[in-house]
Amino acid sequence: MSHAAADAEASRLSRRIAMALGETPADLLITGCRLVNVLSGEIHDADVAVADGVVLGFGDYQARQVVDAGGRYLCPGFLDGHIHIESTLLSPLEFARAVAPHGTAAVVCDPHEIANVMGPAGIEYMLAASSGLPVTFYVMMSSCVPATHMETSGAAITPADIRRMLSPDYPHAWRMLGLAEVMNYPGVLARDPDMLAKIAAARGRVMDGHAPLLTGRRLNAYILAGPGSDHECTRPDEAREKLRRGMHVMIREGSTEQNLADLTPMVTPENAWRFSLVSDDRDPVDIKKYGHMNELVRRAVAQGISPVTAVAMASINTARYFRLYDRGAVAPGYRADLVLVDDLESFAVSRVWLGGRDVRDMDLACREMPATPNTMRPAKIDRDTFRIPARPGRVRVIGVVPGQIVTRSLVLDPTVENGLAVADPARDMAKLAVIERHHATGNVGLGFIQGLGLASGAIAGTVSHDSHNLIVAGVNDADMAFAARTLTTVGGGFCVVNGGRILAVVELPVAGLMSAGCLDELEKALAELGAAYRSVALPTDAEVHPFMSMSFMSLAVIPALKLTDKGLVDVESFSLVDLFVPEA
Amino acid sequence: MSHAAADAEASRLSRRIAMALGETPADLLITGCRLVNVLSGEIHDADVAVADGVVLGFGDYQARQVVDAGGRYLCPGFLDGHIHIESTLLSPLEFARAVAPHGTAAVVCDPHEIANVMGPAGIEYMLAASSGLPVTFYVMMSSCVPATHMETSGAAITPADIRRMLSPDYPHAWRMLGLAEVMNYPGVLARDPDMLAKIAAARGRVMDGHAPLLTGRRLNAYILAGPGSDHECTRPDEAREKLRRGMHVMIREGSTEQNLADLTPMVTPENAWRFSLVSDDRDPVDIKKYGHMNELVRRAVAQGISPVTAVAMASINTARYFRLYDRGAVAPGYRADLVLVDDLESFAVSRVWLGGRDVRDMDLACREMPATPNTMRPAKIDRDTFRIPARPGRVRVIGVVPGQIVTRSLVLDPTVENGLAVADPARDMAKLAVIERHHATGNVGLGFIQGLGLASGAIAGTVSHDSHNLIVAGVNDADMAFAARTLTTVGGGFCVVNGGRILAVVELPVAGLMSAGCLDELEKALAELGAAYRSVALPTDAEVHPFMSMSFMSLAVIPALKLTDKGLVDVESFSLVDLFVPEA
Repeated sequence: MSHAAADAEASRLSRRIAMALGETPADLLITGCRLVNVLSGEIHDADVAVADGVVLGFGDYQARQVVDAGGRYLCPGFLDGHIHIESTLLSPLEFARAVAPHGTAAVVCDPHEIANVMGPAGIEYMLAASSGLPVTFYVMMSSCVPATHMETSGAAITPADIRRMLSPDYPHAWRMLGLAEVMNYPGVLARDPDMLAKIAAARGRVMDGHAPLLTGRRLNAYILAGPGSDHECTRPDEAREKLRRGMHVMIREGSTEQNLADLTPMVTPENAWRFSLVSDDRDPVDIKKYGHMNELVRRAVAQGISPVTAVAMASINTARYFRLYDRGAVAPGYRADLVLVDDLESFAVSRVWLGGRDVRDMDLACREMPATPNTMRPAKIDRDTFRIPARPGRVRVIGVVPGQIVTRSLVLDPTVENGLAVADPARDMAKLAVIERHHATGNVGLGFIQGLGLASGAIAGTVSHDSHNLIVAGVNDADMAFAARTLTTVGGGFCVVNGGRILAVVELPVAGLMSAGCLDELEKALAELGAAYRSVALPTDAEVHPFMSMSFMSLAVIPALKLTDKGLVDVESFSLVDLFVPEA
Repeated sequence: MSHAAADAEASRLSRRIAMALGETPADLLITGCRLVNVLSGEIHDADVAVADGVVLGFGDYQARQVVDAGGRYLCPGFLDGHIHIESTLLSPLEFARAVAPHGTAAVVCDPHEIANVMGPAGIEYMLAASSGLPVTFYVMMSSCVPATHMETSGAAITPADIRRMLSPDYPHAWRMLGLAEVMNYPGVLARDPDMLAKIAAARGRVMDGHAPLLTGRRLNAYILAGPGSDHECTRPDEAREKLRRGMHVMIREGSTEQNLADLTPMVTPENAWRFSLVSDDRDPVDIKKYGHMNELVRRAVAQGISPVTAVAMASINTARYFRLYDRGAVAPGYRADLVLVDDLESFAVSRVWLGGRDVRDMDLACREMPATPNTMRPAKIDRDTFRIPARPGRVRVIGVVPGQIVTRSLVLDPTVENGLAVADPARDMAKLAVIERHHATGNVGLGFIQGLGLASGAIAGTVSHDSHNLIVAGVNDADMAFAARTLTTVGGGFCVVNGGRILAVVELPVAGLMSAGCLDELEKALAELGAAYRSVALPTDAEVHPFMSMSFMSLAVIPALKLTDKGLVDVESFSLVDLFVPEA
């Protein structure tokens, strides 16, 4: 620290000491709280004084504003330790608007999706777009971009990028916490030089892990390499093994993957500090409907975790894991992120202060975000793009497993018309295409998918993990081409077309991943999209999420059969396979 | 991190991954352990593999050496979160030799005593002397040197010293953890510019507190200023208040101050991670007799704390508080500091590995340490140095409180002979002198002390908190002068003289504070010193520690009446007072 900075710090200290001594009035005094004290592990009465954006302490203070909590419970602002903001389809501003009233004070993001589209520039977009918001967006450097060699991503994150953006000289250094989930655990174990170079580039920083079902020596080796957390535990014994070996266990309770009920039995008072609650992926409509971390805390308590522990898992535990020492608790010197909840069952949030400011007093009007440049750069698309000349034998078909991102690898007889293999709604078998959209390579992966429920027309999306190429499912090639071109024009999103007509389109002009507008409008557009889909779908009683389902059909690290712009991927053998299977 | 360093790190990772996968044999496998797992908060069976100085993990491994633990308990190496090594009178090497076999892996030192004698050079001596030892000596920068303005220390620690020695470029940077106990809490609360400049110089680093009985708004203000821990709690309600306000509570259980029994009721499973066990000051003979942190853990368990929690309080909790992420637990990637104990009651240590090496295989022979330059630089001392011409009225007398470092402030009639106020063994009243020994200023503080138990001769010491001037108590001036000159010649220590004869001397040539030799010799010398003292003392049945007692008689921050080289200090009014009190 320079002399000048030290002088400034000393005078800041001096001012705060005077305030804490009560010599000058505080900004805010919240009287009559039942404080959920995650440091002493108890709930006790307190009057909490706030000034200068921080908690001064407990006691009787003069203050410019006095709020009577009326015996309600005061919690520290909530932290989400692992989230991909892009998966909410919201811009950082709109995400902050949505979660701040639910008590979220900070999120630790892995901007993995936008990094796959735009590389470091995507991460920089997220940093710029989240700068100065009432909710703090910390960033972990995405570690596995591209995710595999069997797909074409928009860009790569290199060891040099990681070194540069985790350097103390980087402009957003205070928000750069470390290396995001190291999903490529096979690469770590195989000592892939690029993967190890990325880990080395983040040496001394926090590193998140991602190692579903890894066990024994392989788990030892993975942890030894660096990753210090895991949010992929789905079974108690898995969590126990990772916990014993020193991983911070992030219990994921997102909109799709929900592990809380299974993992709750592992949490004891003695080890609770080793657990966090995280959302990973969160649907925007769920946020609006249920909230964010407050909802996860509510569920944890419903599962039998004590309220103080549940709150700690969404505050101090996460802050400490990420080495954030002024967040996650209500005590002198901590950032004044305060959440007043009515009770410790519903966790209904009645008032929120972030950095000492009442969220209700903030200017949180919806504002259009500046979109990124149009990232849709596919080669020319027409109906011929989707032609599949028939060959002898049967075809590999991706089998949708309802509500899951894993698929089945089927081998079925193709439906052939005029020498072409075609979709067959009678067997709920649509054609699926993944069109490389970043570099106009002309790469197109073609295949079939069973169980998506499409009766006519086509649907398309530019959210398709992890490279986010243009994914299209359809019953006829003309509609598939039209759907793909429609999204190319608007800069990405989701659409439904039928018979040459656009039935609905959700524009996601931020890298083809996120909306530039408001949650309310997005919600409406998504509802229209759903309705349009139902108009082209086979009748069903099940709740279906065809666009979410489709977005995982190109995720080549999740079994069993997936499709990328390079073709069909057999995930078990981690290799590209031909669409046609010759007769034995 | 530079490219070269990143490459080296990547190849280190690669080697370790291969070992953890079992592709190359481990160095050591400890089979049949009951592992005290402070991360999962439980005790479970494990085989623990070690290589490259770190824990590889649990499981079945080939290893060059296999040790059967036979069901004994394996704990992480112990950490002492707050200790003044100087108070053990041992050199760092000798301290390490003494504690390593008891399972101490690291200590966090505040080199406050030697800093008061030698300034930054003293801290640098400690760093150099502890470099490369099997026990890691972390250092917190002493924050309050000199301790008060009412005494003459050998040197000062300035904000610039703190900034320099906590800089990432400092040669010992990896061992420099932050700012040591901020004892001058009145200075903090009064916004003393020098004190705030020191805190500002350590911004962003760990800061230890020292705030006995501070409460309410003043405690809020002190915490807000920076200190994040306290090891001065003596009462449960005090610990509770500090805990609630976010202080890490270090429960001190040293040779003199023992707070464990009083504070144990505050430790719950929910908040235990906020507690550490620390020794603060530890007598060398106690170390030899009882051990170090193993003994504190044993006592904690005897007080009813669960074994896993007690071990955590001497390992992971301390490591995390000090932001040491590879210490304090047994798990993949942690430093292989391992302590095998026979049971969880006695905590009798049967085997210790530090950094993967068996302590029994280390070269821990006693070696003479290089002493510092002789720090004894008083002005000329003779019997006249100690003359106290009588004046009308009574005298202030320091009243010893047995077993305590507080004193009573007495006002008694002086004993006058030939116009001089003199010692009076019949009233157990010795003369006490504090001679400035650093700069030959000629400052001498003179007074009387009751309750030290001296019948004849004189005793002297150069350990006298916090400035460590030469303190002498005696019955006659000639012996006092002789005792003082004796210590000046040998470079400091303790001595007993009588009738112009040296009865015993303990040489402490390292800054007048520490022995350069071995614990065994020191123990013998201290025993001889004790015997010599008893030969000049009044008969008593009580266990007396006259040199320790005397060493606190100049500590001007502990009530009630103390003596420095500048004179008598009334601690309540924090001011110098005259020896003579005029008759009312």
